[in-house]
Amino acid sequence: GGGGISCVLQDGHIFEKAGVNVSVVFGQLSAEAVQQMKSRKTLKDKDGKVPFCAMGVSSVIHPKNPHIPTVHFNYRYFEIEEADGTKQWWFGGGTDLTPTYLNKEDAVHFHKTLKEACDKHDPKLYPKYKKWCDDYFYIKHRGERRGIGGIFFDDVDSPSKEEVFQFVQSCAKAIVPCYVPIVKKHRHDPFTPEEKLWQQLRRGRYVEFNLVYDRGTKFGLATPGSRIESILMSLPLTARWEYMHTPPENSREAEILEVLRNPKDWVH
Amino acid sequence: GGGGISCVLQDGHIFEKAGVNVSVVFGQLSAEAVQQMKSRKTLKDKDGKVPFCAMGVSSVIHPKNPHIPTVHFNYRYFEIEEADGTKQWWFGGGTDLTPTYLNKEDAVHFHKTLKEACDKHDPKLYPKYKKWCDDYFYIKHRGERRGIGGIFFDDVDSPSKEEVFQFVQSCAKAIVPCYVPIVKKHRHDPFTPEEKLWQQLRRGRYVEFNLVYDRGTKFGLATPGSRIESILMSLPLTARWEYMHTPPENSREAEILEVLRNPKDWVH
Repeated sequence: GGGGISCVLQDGHIFEKAGVNVSVVFGQLSAEAVQQMKSRKTLKDKDGKVPFCAMGVSSVIHPKNPHIPTVHFNYRYFEIEEADGTKQWWFGGGTDLTPTYLNKEDAVHFHKTLKEACDKHDPKLYPKYKKWCDDYFYIKHRGERRGIGGIFFDDVDSPSKEEVFQFVQSCAKAIVPCYVPIVKKHRHDPFTPEEKLWQQLRRGRYVEFNLVYDRGTKFGLATPGSRIESILMSLPLTARWEYMHTPPENSREAEILEVLRNPKDWVH
Repeated sequence: GGGGISCVLQDGHIFEKAGVNVSVVFGQLSAEAVQQMKSRKTLKDKDGKVPFCAMGVSSVIHPKNPHIPTVHFNYRYFEIEEADGTKQWWFGGGTDLTPTYLNKEDAVHFHKTLKEACDKHDPKLYPKYKKWCDDYFYIKHRGERRGIGGIFFDDVDSPSKEEVFQFVQSCAKAIVPCYVPIVKKHRHDPFTPEEKLWQQLRRGRYVEFNLVYDRGTKFGLATPGSRIESILMSLPLTARWEYMHTPPENSREAEILEVLRNPKDWVH
């Protein structure tokens, strides 16, 4: 049960595909979802049945210009009821950036803005959630992260519901100042067909991460009755896979790959 | 351990991307692979360790012209050693066709050629393996099959190793007569940009099946040390995802969708 609203902009002037989902869903967790959740937390189910309620907002923005990075964010609240009637709740979410080419100034701006939002609540949060983001958006079979990260967290249920909610709101308010200045800065940057091609190959990696590893996508695809078009809205308009594509040494393509293989600290 | 040879043709005159893998690998099954296998057969492992040996040939051919279908085949032999030293062996494989547009004559030719190869061994095989193929290449979240099927089988270990091997050889020999006449027939067919766009959307579905459901791909991605470029060779050169794309009623795009949603019997 439940519902939501999906809004998608496709083939715009600046954005190739950009979407937002807002949803509030409830019901019984699927057996797959229960198993996935049990790998993370103790959970007492009644004959495999776990009533849940989940709500969140998520967005992915894929620009046309390869000098503007893709951004993704998702903030969500989850509640489950255990067999003995007790309720568990938690917040999860994050904001992360996927550039086609590395622009150090942009990377620093993006991470610093997120750090400031986190620091208002607890200076321990940014370093912890920055690392969690690098670990989560890992394309294991490639040995690469999806992008240059940002913050990511899940199962957060302390110090209190109100305090976590305040923190999540700070994160959400940081999205526009994180990203929009980068879009404005690069919207008129010229680009070559070779740069567009590299963007398309990186889009292929984005598809690999989302379909093979992303927990939200897997949860959605495994939940009967979920709205597939909203879940797969995150996929780029177009993507490309070339056999054995390897950028030349010291190229700008190799530069971003190096950072995807060995995540950097952008704020110190 | 082990090795293999991958051969890929990219951006040719007729084929956008076409590859063949031949491989012989051995070692210990990963925990994920053991679990996946245990869902299909009884298997006695020693502290989770299961030595295996696998060999096979697989190929995917994605043509440029949207009037030539994509073909895929894979034939493989698998051996595992159980905790008490007993060995299990089996053959698996199949050949299947993924057209962008339905051509009934091609579909009948493809299925009839496979049926003849099967019938030489046992008339029960084609109907059984045709259904298995329709069930296997199912994109559950879309309610669609990947293509118009063909044959698929796995875990085949009777009546005898020699007889199954003879059958697999007949299937392998049927690949060229199944597919090459279709390529020759359509290689000069004119096509429109709209037809090319529909092909790209169908390629997106191909990617969804391979990354989300395909057992071979999942086994490969989960096996440490496997050669990723060979496994993901099956992905098309380019693919596309549009939000809420729905072909108009009675269009040629709707015609193929109908067959992907409700598989047909092509030989009776």
